[in-house]
Amino acid sequence: MTVKQLSLPELADACGQLGIVNVGLWREPVQSYGLEATAKLVRDAGLTVTTLCRGGFFTAIDADERAAALADNRRAIDEAATLGTDTLVLVSGGLPAGSKDLHGARERVADALAELGPYAEQHGVRLAIEPLHPMYASDRCVVSTLAQALDLAERFPAHQVGVTVDTYHIWWDDNAPAQIARAGASGRIHTFQLADWTTPLPEGVLNGRGQVGDGAIDMREWQHYVEAAGYTGAIEVELFNDALWARDGREVLAETARRFVENTD
Amino acid sequence: MTVKQLSLPELADACGQLGIVNVGLWREPVQSYGLEATAKLVRDAGLTVTTLCRGGFFTAIDADERAAALADNRRAIDEAATLGTDTLVLVSGGLPAGSKDLHGARERVADALAELGPYAEQHGVRLAIEPLHPMYASDRCVVSTLAQALDLAERFPAHQVGVTVDTYHIWWDDNAPAQIARAGASGRIHTFQLADWTTPLPEGVLNGRGQVGDGAIDMREWQHYVEAAGYTGAIEVELFNDALWARDGREVLAETARRFVENTD
Repeated sequence: MTVKQLSLPELADACGQLGIVNVGLWREPVQSYGLEATAKLVRDAGLTVTTLCRGGFFTAIDADERAAALADNRRAIDEAATLGTDTLVLVSGGLPAGSKDLHGARERVADALAELGPYAEQHGVRLAIEPLHPMYASDRCVVSTLAQALDLAERFPAHQVGVTVDTYHIWWDDNAPAQIARAGASGRIHTFQLADWTTPLPEGVLNGRGQVGDGAIDMREWQHYVEAAGYTGAIEVELFNDALWARDGREVLAETARRFVENTD
Repeated sequence: MTVKQLSLPELADACGQLGIVNVGLWREPVQSYGLEATAKLVRDAGLTVTTLCRGGFFTAIDADERAAALADNRRAIDEAATLGTDTLVLVSGGLPAGSKDLHGARERVADALAELGPYAEQHGVRLAIEPLHPMYASDRCVVSTLAQALDLAERFPAHQVGVTVDTYHIWWDDNAPAQIARAGASGRIHTFQLADWTTPLPEGVLNGRGQVGDGAIDMREWQHYVEAAGYTGAIEVELFNDALWARDGREVLAETARRFVENTD
């Protein structure tokens, strides 16, 4: 998603040029290019798919909408398995129109996890609840902190449900380091993502994630928390940024790789 | 601030028409109209000033900037005392340019409170730390949760330092109800403010606070938490909203009064 201006073959080629061997993918470009074709492309390019983004959107009250969301998440699990990744990132969904019931919405997320966890396990896929920044609580994700994500995840086995740790969403939270330790202790850090916090935020606050090193977040500090908690997996850089998307994708990918090296150990 | 398009005399007159007897004021319009003149205006109109907004901006590292901030806050305390309110709302300030040290910035807030608390007490004014929504953590307020605000406030006597509870900033936080109880138990809820959460957020995320009843927040739920914690003070409505500011101020004030009645007990 960081370089969504690149087609998947361009992305694979650019990764090869830069010596990048891991890639996180999003469902939409995979579906457009074709699931089996993408699986073959990354296999032939020697790329490992670290995670698939994203399932989720579990908060509907309407029965048909709920059933459709669960069916779509089963497809996402199938896609993850076909791509060879063991991790599906979940964005929980926001409040249904007109609802003010955050607690109820969070419980519906738990209900969905109970249905999907065993299916994911059968396919060798772990679900990774991603707490999004509280500014998305109403319209995108009712799970706003790592503590909330772990409260949900811990109702299930760790090989079914864990969390996504993304610096952009948790950097402000002085409780997050303790929650990373909690997540690590039960083997629930299923992926670790970097994006920097830059202001002013754009209208809608969706596409303003800063390039690593451009903002307020000390990436090494968070890397140390995660690694001290036992995490040894890949570190992903996930940027949604209109200014980056407007540039040449290969140049942005190369810049991102440099920034990653400069801002992590 | 909700109806900043009204001059202070217009505001006093409109409050009188609507039977509103309490008003929260901001420093800038008071300074423009004149401090003594404002004090006389509200006194003659039979209005009680509930709070003065705002002091704070304590996070500078530079010694001259810190001294200037403390001097300005002493003036704010003087102004509050002259206006007859016992509460000065504090917005802590963001990260200094180039800094990634949230912890250090929060400690500098504590240092400033230690200097200002006794001065405020001498003037019969309580400082009310306002945690702002985490989306303001870098550029406006490093205190993002009620828990953080109370961790700071509890280093000082409650009659010197407490907190501002504003629905807009804390509604997403499932830990906030317990923190309201904590604040109430030590007599630290110094004011309670309402604004609703509406999306999409505008660029810069400053002037998109929703009219009471327009958004995702259950106002009665938060009123009940605050009152169950022993709060008996005024409830303020504080909206920053470009669309509301563009309308007739008297009409907006009347609408706000109606919405307040409809959405609270």
